[in-house]
Amino acid sequence: MKTDKYWMDKAINAAEISALCGGGPFGCAIVKDGRIVAITSNSVTKDNDPTAHAEINAIRMACKNLGTFVLEGCTLYTSCEPCPMCLAACYWAHIDKIFYSGNRDDAAIAGFDDDHIYEEFRLPMEEREIPIERISPEKGSVPFLAWKNNEDRVEY
Amino acid sequence: MKTDKYWMDKAINAAEISALCGGGPFGCAIVKDGRIVAITSNSVTKDNDPTAHAEINAIRMACKNLGTFVLEGCTLYTSCEPCPMCLAACYWAHIDKIFYSGNRDDAAIAGFDDDHIYEEFRLPMEEREIPIERISPEKGSVPFLAWKNNEDRVEY
Repeated sequence: MKTDKYWMDKAINAAEISALCGGGPFGCAIVKDGRIVAITSNSVTKDNDPTAHAEINAIRMACKNLGTFVLEGCTLYTSCEPCPMCLAACYWAHIDKIFYSGNRDDAAIAGFDDDHIYEEFRLPMEEREIPIERISPEKGSVPFLAWKNNEDRVEY
Repeated sequence: MKTDKYWMDKAINAAEISALCGGGPFGCAIVKDGRIVAITSNSVTKDNDPTAHAEINAIRMACKNLGTFVLEGCTLYTSCEPCPMCLAACYWAHIDKIFYSGNRDDAAIAGFDDDHIYEEFRLPMEEREIPIERISPEKGSVPFLAWKNNEDRVEY
């Protein structure tokens, strides 16, 4: 059985290779039952996709490889503490456990402002940097009623 | 010039159609300079991708259509208040403004537990549902040093 440090080294290696080759300096590995099911790096600028963080890419790859949208039984190793987007994605994917190496201070020194987004989450909605406003609240339940009435729906 | 309510109706329509056709009951539109650049719905179960929320799909589509990873000047209309993953994605994408219709209570009634993830974010790391642990901290800065030393890096 390989150790957690072994898998973390793989994630860090992926991050370093990415940084050397024009990608973002972040890597991620997902492991299930002692076998790797995804290893990825950050491809935001390469793919023109601001959601293409290493962890999001890894979750998408693991789901594709396993043919599921639920990653129960999986452990995620990320070279740096997940940002709020990636941490929430781990919840939606039902990842069992997360290991990280660098933290948000390491990321900030390199110019990545994950901590700023965490701080925004702590603010009341009306004080946040991106204005967010509710409109058409009376229609907010329409899609949910259609969903509840669809007996063929796939719950998740 | 079309109104915000007009674009919100489009997002809600996308959500309702999705709910009727086996997708999740969420829709999203992104508009730039009065023109739609993305309209999507939640495809988690259809695509086996837990990250495929309507807003993530819309951000990816808009970036693809516009050939960029920065959505400055864009407004995002979502049929339901963004979950933490999607809200953080709006920050990474530099969306200008967010409008939503349903809120997290509407979502909870339909069985979607966005609020639970928001609550997890407020807890100290060691009290969260998904265990998260730091290992190999001495290696955490390695990818960032490679990044800083790569003069060809594309910052974002």
